[in-house]
Amino acid sequence: MATPTTLSVEDVLRVNGSRRFAAAMAAASPFASLADALLAARRIWLNEVDVNGWLEAFAAHPAIGTTSPSVPKWCKEEQSAALSTATDSTAQELAEWNAKYREKFGFVFMICASGRTTPEVLADLKRRYVNRPIVELEAAAREELKITELRLAKLFSSEPTVPSATAK
Amino acid sequence: MATPTTLSVEDVLRVNGSRRFAAAMAAASPFASLADALLAARRIWLNEVDVNGWLEAFAAHPAIGTTSPSVPKWCKEEQSAALSTATDSTAQELAEWNAKYREKFGFVFMICASGRTTPEVLADLKRRYVNRPIVELEAAAREELKITELRLAKLFSSEPTVPSATAK
Repeated sequence: MATPTTLSVEDVLRVNGSRRFAAAMAAASPFASLADALLAARRIWLNEVDVNGWLEAFAAHPAIGTTSPSVPKWCKEEQSAALSTATDSTAQELAEWNAKYREKFGFVFMICASGRTTPEVLADLKRRYVNRPIVELEAAAREELKITELRLAKLFSSEPTVPSATAK
Repeated sequence: MATPTTLSVEDVLRVNGSRRFAAAMAAASPFASLADALLAARRIWLNEVDVNGWLEAFAAHPAIGTTSPSVPKWCKEEQSAALSTATDSTAQELAEWNAKYREKFGFVFMICASGRTTPEVLADLKRRYVNRPIVELEAAAREELKITELRLAKLFSSEPTVPSATAK
Protein backbone atom coordinates (compact mmCIF):
# COMPACT_ATOMS: atom_id res chain seq x y z
CA MET A 1 0.00 0.00 0.00
CA ALA A 2 1.46 3.33 -1.02
CA THR A 3 -0.70 5.51 1.24
CA PRO A 4 -0.46 5.41 5.02
CA THR A 5 -2.39 2.43 6.30
CA THR A 6 -5.00 2.79 8.99
CA LEU A 7 -5.66 -0.43 10.90
CA SER A 8 -8.89 -1.02 12.78
CA VAL A 9 -9.03 -3.10 15.95
CA GLU A 10 -10.74 -5.83 13.88
CA ASP A 11 -7.92 -5.81 11.31
CA VAL A 12 -5.34 -6.34 14.05
CA LEU A 13 -7.37 -9.05 15.79
CA ARG A 14 -7.02 -11.13 12.58
CA VAL A 15 -3.28 -10.89 13.09
CA ASN A 16 -3.09 -11.33 16.87
CA GLY A 17 -5.90 -12.27 19.26
CA SER A 18 -4.88 -9.98 22.14
CA ARG A 19 -7.41 -7.15 22.53
CA ARG A 20 -4.83 -5.00 24.30
CA PHE A 21 -2.41 -5.45 21.40
CA ALA A 22 -5.15 -4.74 18.85
CA ALA A 23 -6.28 -1.57 20.60
CA ALA A 24 -2.71 -0.25 20.91
CA MET A 25 -1.84 -1.06 17.27
CA ALA A 26 -5.02 0.57 15.99
CA ALA A 27 -4.26 3.63 18.11
CA ALA A 28 -0.69 3.74 16.74
CA SER A 29 -1.85 3.59 13.11
CA PRO A 30 -1.87 4.90 10.39
CA PHE A 31 1.53 3.44 9.47
CA ALA A 32 3.55 4.94 6.62
CA SER A 33 5.00 1.54 5.76
CA LEU A 34 5.05 -2.13 6.75
CA ALA A 35 8.39 -1.48 8.46
CA ASP A 36 6.75 1.11 10.71
CA ALA A 37 3.94 -1.28 11.57
CA LEU A 38 6.43 -4.06 12.40
CA LEU A 39 8.38 -1.77 14.72
CA ALA A 40 5.21 -0.72 16.51
CA ALA A 41 4.05 -4.34 16.79
CA ARG A 42 7.32 -5.43 18.40
CA ARG A 43 7.35 -2.52 20.85
CA ILE A 44 3.72 -2.99 21.86
CA TRP A 45 3.83 -6.79 22.07
CA LEU A 46 6.98 -7.00 24.18
CA ASN A 47 6.61 -3.88 26.33
CA GLU A 48 2.94 -3.07 26.71
CA VAL A 49 0.92 -6.27 26.47
CA ASP A 50 0.70 -7.99 29.86
CA VAL A 51 0.78 -11.72 30.49
CA ASN A 52 -3.01 -11.96 30.28
CA GLY A 53 -2.84 -10.41 26.82
CA TRP A 54 -0.20 -12.94 25.76
CA LEU A 55 -2.36 -15.82 26.99
CA GLU A 56 -5.37 -14.34 25.18
CA ALA A 57 -3.40 -14.27 21.92
CA PHE A 58 -2.17 -17.86 22.38
CA ALA A 59 -5.74 -19.00 23.04
CA ALA A 60 -6.78 -17.72 19.60
CA HIS A 61 -4.64 -20.41 17.91
CA PRO A 62 -5.70 -23.98 17.18
CA ALA A 63 -3.22 -26.65 18.34
CA ILE A 64 -0.61 -27.18 15.63
CA GLY A 65 -1.51 -30.07 13.33
CA THR A 66 -5.24 -29.53 13.83
CA THR A 67 -7.09 -30.02 10.55
CA SER A 68 -10.68 -29.21 11.52
CA PRO A 69 -12.63 -27.05 9.05
CA SER A 70 -12.93 -24.33 11.68
CA VAL A 71 -9.19 -23.59 11.50
CA PRO A 72 -8.72 -20.13 9.88
CA LYS A 73 -7.23 -19.98 6.37
CA TRP A 74 -4.05 -18.21 7.52
CA CYS A 75 -3.33 -20.92 10.09
CA LYS A 76 -3.71 -23.57 7.40
CA GLU A 77 -1.34 -21.73 5.07
CA GLU A 78 1.20 -21.27 7.86
CA GLN A 79 1.06 -24.97 8.66
CA SER A 80 0.97 -26.25 5.06
CA ALA A 81 4.50 -27.74 5.16
CA ALA A 82 3.79 -29.42 8.49
CA LEU A 83 0.46 -30.81 7.34
CA SER A 84 1.85 -32.13 4.03
CA THR A 85 4.67 -33.99 5.81
CA ALA A 86 2.56 -35.48 8.61
CA THR A 87 2.16 -39.25 8.56
CA ASP A 88 -0.51 -40.90 10.69
CA SER A 89 2.04 -41.80 13.34
CA THR A 90 3.73 -38.38 13.52
CA ALA A 91 0.32 -36.64 13.55
CA GLN A 92 -0.67 -38.88 16.44
CA GLU A 93 2.59 -38.23 18.28
CA LEU A 94 2.17 -34.48 17.74
CA ALA A 95 -1.34 -34.59 19.17
CA GLU A 96 -0.05 -36.44 22.25
CA TRP A 97 2.82 -33.99 22.82
CA ASN A 98 0.49 -31.02 22.30
CA ALA A 99 -1.72 -32.33 25.11
CA LYS A 100 1.30 -33.00 27.36
CA TYR A 101 2.62 -29.48 26.66
CA ARG A 102 -0.69 -27.83 27.43
CA GLU A 103 -0.94 -29.79 30.67
CA LYS A 104 2.48 -28.55 31.80
CA PHE A 105 2.31 -24.93 30.63
CA GLY A 106 -1.41 -24.11 30.55
CA PHE A 107 -1.48 -22.85 26.95
CA VAL A 108 -1.25 -24.28 23.43
CA PHE A 109 2.23 -24.95 21.93
CA MET A 110 3.06 -21.82 19.91
CA ILE A 111 5.36 -22.11 16.92
CA CYS A 112 5.78 -20.08 13.77
CA ALA A 113 5.37 -23.13 11.54
CA SER A 114 5.77 -21.53 8.12
CA GLY A 115 7.88 -23.85 5.97
CA ARG A 116 8.53 -26.34 8.79
CA THR A 117 7.81 -30.05 8.55
CA THR A 118 5.98 -32.09 11.16
CA PRO A 119 9.18 -33.87 12.35
CA GLU A 120 10.82 -30.45 12.81
CA VAL A 121 7.85 -29.09 14.75
CA LEU A 122 7.75 -32.21 16.92
CA ALA A 123 11.48 -31.99 17.66
CA ASP A 124 11.04 -28.34 18.71
CA LEU A 125 8.10 -29.18 20.93
CA LYS A 126 10.08 -31.91 22.72
CA ARG A 127 13.11 -29.65 23.12
CA ARG A 128 11.02 -26.81 24.57
CA TYR A 129 8.93 -29.09 26.81
CA VAL A 130 11.75 -29.31 29.37
CA ASN A 131 11.86 -25.51 29.81
CA ARG A 132 10.84 -23.81 33.03
CA PRO A 133 7.35 -22.28 32.60
CA ILE A 134 8.62 -18.66 32.65
CA VAL A 135 11.24 -19.45 29.98
CA GLU A 136 8.67 -21.20 27.83
CA LEU A 137 6.20 -18.34 28.21
CA GLU A 138 8.73 -15.96 26.70
CA ALA A 139 9.64 -18.45 23.94
CA ALA A 140 5.95 -18.80 23.06
CA ALA A 141 5.53 -15.02 22.99
CA ARG A 142 8.51 -14.71 20.60
CA GLU A 143 6.87 -17.26 18.26
CA GLU A 144 3.58 -15.36 18.48
CA LEU A 145 5.47 -12.20 17.49
CA LYS A 146 6.93 -13.95 14.40
CA ILE A 147 3.44 -15.09 13.38
CA THR A 148 2.13 -11.58 13.96
CA GLU A 149 4.87 -10.10 11.77
CA LEU A 150 4.15 -12.52 8.91
CA ARG A 151 0.44 -11.79 9.08
CA LEU A 152 1.00 -8.03 9.17
CA ALA A 153 3.06 -8.43 5.98
CA LYS A 154 0.17 -10.33 4.40
CA LEU A 155 -2.24 -7.61 5.48
CA PHE A 156 -0.05 -4.92 3.90
CA SER A 157 0.43 -6.86 0.66
CA SER A 158 -3.25 -7.61 0.20
CA GLU A 159 -5.72 -5.60 -1.86
CA PRO A 160 -6.04 -1.85 -1.16
CA THR A 161 -9.25 -2.54 0.70
CA VAL A 162 -8.31 -4.76 3.60
CA PRO A 163 -10.47 -7.86 3.12
CA SER A 164 -11.70 -8.25 6.68
CA ALA A 165 -14.80 -10.10 5.49
CA THR A 166 -12.75 -13.14 4.43
CA ALA A 167 -10.84 -13.44 7.69
CA LYS A 168 -12.94 -15.75 9.79
CA MET B 1 8.60 -30.13 64.67
CA ALA B 2 10.87 -33.07 65.34
CA THR B 3 8.86 -35.69 63.46
CA PRO B 4 8.43 -35.65 59.68
CA THR B 5 5.75 -33.12 58.81
CA THR B 6 2.85 -34.02 56.61
CA LEU B 7 1.25 -31.03 54.89
CA SER B 8 -2.31 -31.12 53.61
CA VAL B 9 -3.41 -29.15 50.54
CA GLU B 10 -5.22 -26.78 52.93
CA ASP B 11 -2.04 -26.21 54.97
CA VAL B 12 -0.14 -25.24 51.84
CA LEU B 13 -2.92 -23.00 50.53
CA ARG B 14 -2.43 -20.81 53.64
CA VAL B 15 1.15 -20.35 52.49
CA ASN B 16 0.59 -19.95 48.74
CA GLY B 17 -2.72 -19.62 46.88
CA SER B 18 -1.80 -21.72 43.84
CA ARG B 19 -3.77 -24.97 43.85
CA ARG B 20 -1.17 -26.61 41.64
CA PHE B 21 1.58 -25.66 44.08
CA ALA B 22 -0.48 -26.85 47.04
CA ALA B 23 -1.26 -30.20 45.46
CA ALA B 24 2.39 -30.81 44.53
CA MET B 25 3.70 -29.79 47.97
CA ALA B 26 1.17 -31.97 49.76
CA ALA B 27 2.13 -34.88 47.48
CA ALA B 28 5.83 -34.27 48.19
CA SER B 29 5.30 -34.27 51.99
CA PRO B 30 6.02 -35.51 54.65
CA PHE B 31 9.19 -33.44 54.99
CA ALA B 32 11.92 -34.44 57.43
CA SER B 33 12.81 -30.79 58.07
CA LEU B 34 11.98 -27.22 57.14
CA ALA B 35 15.03 -27.25 54.87
CA ASP B 36 13.56 -30.15 52.88
CA ALA B 37 10.23 -28.36 52.58
CA LEU B 38 11.95 -25.17 51.37
CA LEU B 39 13.89 -27.08 48.71
CA ALA B 40 10.70 -28.75 47.49
CA ALA B 41 8.84 -25.43 47.47
CA ARG B 42 11.51 -23.76 45.34
CA ARG B 43 11.67 -26.65 42.86
CA ILE B 44 7.90 -26.89 42.50
CA TRP B 45 7.23 -23.16 42.34
CA LEU B 46 9.87 -22.38 39.72
CA ASN B 47 9.74 -25.55 37.62
CA GLU B 48 6.28 -27.05 37.86
CA VAL B 49 3.75 -24.30 38.51
CA ASP B 50 2.62 -22.72 35.24
CA VAL B 51 1.86 -19.05 34.66
CA ASN B 52 -1.80 -19.54 35.54
CA GLY B 53 -0.73 -20.97 38.89
CA TRP B 54 1.52 -17.97 39.51
CA LEU B 55 -1.34 -15.59 38.73
CA GLU B 56 -3.63 -17.58 41.01
CA ALA B 57 -1.16 -17.21 43.87
CA PHE B 58 -0.75 -13.46 43.26
CA ALA B 59 -4.53 -13.04 43.26
CA ALA B 60 -4.68 -14.45 46.81
CA HIS B 61 -2.86 -11.35 48.15
CA PRO B 62 -4.42 -8.03 49.11
CA ALA B 63 -2.75 -4.97 47.56
CA ILE B 64 0.13 -3.89 49.79
CA GLY B 65 -0.89 -1.19 52.25
CA THR B 66 -4.49 -2.44 52.38
CA THR B 67 -5.79 -2.26 55.95
CA SER B 68 -9.28 -3.74 55.59
CA PRO B 69 -10.33 -6.19 58.35
CA SER B 70 -10.54 -8.98 55.76
CA VAL B 71 -6.75 -8.98 55.26
CA PRO B 72 -5.36 -12.23 56.72
CA LYS B 73 -3.29 -12.05 59.91
CA TRP B 74 -0.07 -13.20 58.20
CA CYS B 75 -0.34 -10.45 55.60
CA LYS B 76 -0.75 -7.87 58.37
CA GLU B 77 2.31 -9.20 60.22
CA GLU B 78 4.36 -9.19 57.02
CA GLN B 79 3.37 -5.60 56.32
CA SER B 80 3.67 -4.30 59.88
CA ALA B 81 6.77 -2.17 59.20
CA ALA B 82 5.19 -0.71 56.08
CA LEU B 83 1.92 0.03 57.83
CA SER B 84 3.59 1.65 60.85
CA THR B 85 5.63 3.99 58.64
CA ALA B 86 2.83 5.01 56.29
CA THR B 87 1.71 8.62 56.48
CA ASP B 88 -1.55 9.69 54.87
CA SER B 89 0.28 11.02 51.84
CA THR B 90 2.53 7.98 51.30
CA ALA B 91 -0.42 5.64 51.84
CA GLN B 92 -2.34 7.58 49.19
CA GLU B 93 0.63 7.52 46.82
CA LEU B 94 1.05 3.77 47.36
CA ALA B 95 -2.62 3.18 46.56
CA GLU B 96 -2.27 5.17 43.33
CA TRP B 97 0.87 3.32 42.24
CA ASN B 98 -0.70 -0.02 43.10
CA ALA B 99 -3.58 0.80 40.76
CA LYS B 100 -1.19 1.97 38.03
CA TYR B 101 0.88 -1.20 38.43
CA ARG B 102 -2.14 -3.47 38.21
CA GLU B 103 -3.33 -1.65 35.08
CA LYS B 104 0.03 -2.24 33.36
CA PHE B 105 0.77 -5.80 34.48
CA GLY B 106 -2.66 -7.31 35.19
CA PHE B 107 -1.84 -8.49 38.73
CA VAL B 108 -1.28 -7.00 42.17
CA PHE B 109 2.21 -5.65 43.06
CA MET B 110 3.97 -8.51 44.85
CA ILE B 111 6.65 -7.75 47.40
CA CYS B 112 8.00 -9.59 50.39
CA ALA B 113 7.41 -6.65 52.71
CA SER B 114 8.70 -8.08 55.98
CA GLY B 115 10.66 -5.35 57.75
CA ARG B 116 10.30 -2.84 54.92
CA THR B 117 8.94 0.67 55.35
CA THR B 118 6.33 2.28 53.13
CA PRO B 119 8.87 4.61 51.43
CA GLU B 120 11.04 1.56 50.63
CA VAL B 121 8.08 -0.37 49.22
CA LEU B 122 7.02 2.63 47.15
CA ALA B 123 10.53 3.12 45.78
CA ASP B 124 10.62 -0.56 44.76
CA LEU B 125 7.24 -0.33 43.09
CA LYS B 126 8.31 2.68 41.03
CA ARG B 127 11.60 1.04 40.07
CA ARG B 128 9.88 -2.16 38.96
CA TYR B 129 7.03 -0.38 37.17
CA VAL B 130 9.27 0.34 34.15
CA ASN B 131 10.03 -3.38 33.64
CA ARG B 132 8.80 -5.29 30.62
CA PRO B 133 5.81 -7.45 31.64
CA ILE B 134 7.71 -10.76 31.30
CA VAL B 135 10.56 -9.44 33.47
CA GLU B 136 8.12 -8.19 36.07
CA LEU B 137 6.22 -11.48 36.08
CA GLU B 138 9.39 -13.30 37.08
CA ALA B 139 10.26 -10.63 39.68
CA ALA B 140 6.79 -10.98 41.20
CA ALA B 141 7.13 -14.77 41.28
CA ARG B 142 10.48 -14.45 43.12
CA GLU B 143 8.81 -12.22 45.74
CA GLU B 144 5.97 -14.72 46.07
CA LEU B 145 8.56 -17.45 46.66
CA LYS B 146 10.17 -15.41 49.47
CA ILE B 147 6.77 -14.93 51.11
CA THR B 148 6.08 -18.65 50.70
CA GLU B 149 9.40 -19.53 52.36
CA LEU B 150 8.74 -17.24 55.34
CA ARG B 151 5.27 -18.68 55.80
CA LEU B 152 6.52 -22.26 55.56
CA ALA B 153 8.97 -21.40 58.34
CA LYS B 154 6.09 -20.07 60.44
CA LEU B 155 4.10 -23.20 59.74
CA PHE B 156 7.00 -25.41 60.87
CA SER B 157 7.65 -23.34 64.00
CA SER B 158 4.02 -23.28 65.09
CA GLU B 159 2.34 -25.66 67.54
CA PRO B 160 2.55 -29.43 66.83
CA THR B 161 -1.00 -29.29 65.58
CA VAL B 162 -1.02 -26.97 62.60
CA PRO B 163 -3.62 -24.32 63.50
CA SER B 164 -5.47 -24.27 60.20
CA ALA B 165 -8.62 -22.98 61.87
CA THR B 166 -7.02 -19.60 62.57
CA ALA B 167 -5.77 -19.09 59.04
CA LYS B 168 -8.62 -17.32 57.32
